[in-house]
Amino acid sequence: MAVVLTVEALTDVVAQVLVRHGMSPGNARIVAAVVVAAERDGSRSHGLLRLPGYVATLKSGWVDGTAVPDVVDAAPGLVATDARNGFAQVALAASRTVLEAKARAAGIAALAIRNSHHFAALWPDVEPFAASGFVALAVVNVRSRIVVWGAKRKLLGTNPMAFACPRPGAPPLVWDQASSVVAQGEVLLAATERRPVAPGIGVDAQGAPSVDPRAILDGGAMMPFADHKGSAIAFMVEILAAALTGGRFGFEDRSAAFPGAQTSNAGQCIIVIEPSRTAGNAFGTRVEALIAQLLASGVSRLPGEHRYARRRRALADGIAIAERDHAAVMALLEA
Amino acid sequence: MAVVLTVEALTDVVAQVLVRHGMSPGNARIVAAVVVAAERDGSRSHGLLRLPGYVATLKSGWVDGTAVPDVVDAAPGLVATDARNGFAQVALAASRTVLEAKARAAGIAALAIRNSHHFAALWPDVEPFAASGFVALAVVNVRSRIVVWGAKRKLLGTNPMAFACPRPGAPPLVWDQASSVVAQGEVLLAATERRPVAPGIGVDAQGAPSVDPRAILDGGAMMPFADHKGSAIAFMVEILAAALTGGRFGFEDRSAAFPGAQTSNAGQCIIVIEPSRTAGNAFGTRVEALIAQLLASGVSRLPGEHRYARRRRALADGIAIAERDHAAVMALLEA
Repeated sequence: MAVVLTVEALTDVVAQVLVRHGMSPGNARIVAAVVVAAERDGSRSHGLLRLPGYVATLKSGWVDGTAVPDVVDAAPGLVATDARNGFAQVALAASRTVLEAKARAAGIAALAIRNSHHFAALWPDVEPFAASGFVALAVVNVRSRIVVWGAKRKLLGTNPMAFACPRPGAPPLVWDQASSVVAQGEVLLAATERRPVAPGIGVDAQGAPSVDPRAILDGGAMMPFADHKGSAIAFMVEILAAALTGGRFGFEDRSAAFPGAQTSNAGQCIIVIEPSRTAGNAFGTRVEALIAQLLASGVSRLPGEHRYARRRRALADGIAIAERDHAAVMALLEA
Repeated sequence: MAVVLTVEALTDVVAQVLVRHGMSPGNARIVAAVVVAAERDGSRSHGLLRLPGYVATLKSGWVDGTAVPDVVDAAPGLVATDARNGFAQVALAASRTVLEAKARAAGIAALAIRNSHHFAALWPDVEPFAASGFVALAVVNVRSRIVVWGAKRKLLGTNPMAFACPRPGAPPLVWDQASSVVAQGEVLLAATERRPVAPGIGVDAQGAPSVDPRAILDGGAMMPFADHKGSAIAFMVEILAAALTGGRFGFEDRSAAFPGAQTSNAGQCIIVIEPSRTAGNAFGTRVEALIAQLLASGVSRLPGEHRYARRRRALADGIAIAERDHAAVMALLEA
């Protein structure tokens, strides 16, 4: 049995839950849209599954749901935004117009967000830039979760990177990947469904390889992808998202002092490039030429394509939510 | 038995070899410095081992060793350089001053190089920016060499990415990694030394897994690291280095029409960020705080550290070159 809701109706419900637990209505709409975008696109690990985490974090007092970001014009190509201990998506929304204007004027611009909480997928942050014709790259650091290649204990976060490239007449090509073998959300999903994860993903509190998602999440750690290569990416993300923005490193996380808190107060960096300044009008044609070759080489699915297919179905037929999951959302309205 | 040469003496010899085979003296100095930097730093796969490839490519007529790059001020944050079918390092050298000036003024700037040949390691391109206080990220695309995750035949190049971060009072932290499991240079080195490579690195011409470096290089292909994750990075590099710059994609390589040619005519993108505009004066202190934690977590070697150790020895004691390898270099002076 499933409850079927439109994207708008589900966004309303999620926003109500967030307001119920301390968010301002405007901020709640922004965060709800990101949660529902993940659910809509079949990205379950970042969809409604996360809502109890948002609520618990708001209730803990660790994040400020009413924060008004402070957007500073730092340089002709830089925007520096203090999220004021609020959600990163709210800071991004407040900075988007000035960032795009800078990227149009300078050809490239970056947004440095600090003092922010990012608890969602990263692709919703870059897709809109590509939909507006920009190439976009985003990184976020989070609390310590992975054991860097060659190290003995966890230090860097699962630090994701996302990339988006516009296509003429088609939705952007977008990828989003953690620096760990799998995203932490996948381990959370496995824990919720009480099933083991694949080998090689994580270790337990003693540092021994484990397929038990709870052992990995509770005191254990996750492994970087491709050993030193994922570690190098995670390090770069920590520099760009925290050192460069003036944000906190993953190891500086203080959420443990706020029982229930599940987010990290960290940073985010987004680089946006206007392709026509160097590629001229040919950029779109060139991207399509590459895509045609990718498909001809046997690739069955382009980055983001699976999400777009799910999205089309959700927009046409609504989002089907298991009755138990829907009840859990509604219960958060009363909690 | 080994011949020991100073960095300067070896650079002179390599530059002479390059001039002997058609490079202009100024261009030859630039490329020789990069070849010797790799040899000096113990990065053998990109050192003297590559010199016969440079010579063969110059002799084939595929690359123009006398090219004078065309540097265009494309936007307040963008430099667009046509390498004019010359080596990418020559184009970078011609663009460096304007790129750094833009990064200082705008806070961020990018260099888009097209119509260029990159046959060296990528870290020498970013390290100097970090030595000047910038954070730098570089990508290069090369001819088709990897089979994208889920595809049936090779399409994207081993498309490396390099990252450099300045440190106060210490050489920059620098990493440089291919999108393949190992760099193609490692497979070349194994072929030269007639030893097998590790499993999982490549496939033969029939698409079957192979540990024979010659089978991988001759008609075979290399595998992306971490399956879809390395594939996603290689795709991003192809967009940034080729589509964005107006350069050629790896699959558009026409070097086969020039027997002996070993380079790709492709593109490169370098993004340079001035950290003080968003991080203030604290950037260096923050980077050191992260490094202290990395070391405390058990990491035995920081990115680039092994190269710096080799470099110190080479600068103090000279570069030791096996007699046979030295004879091969000298033979290229006569060839």
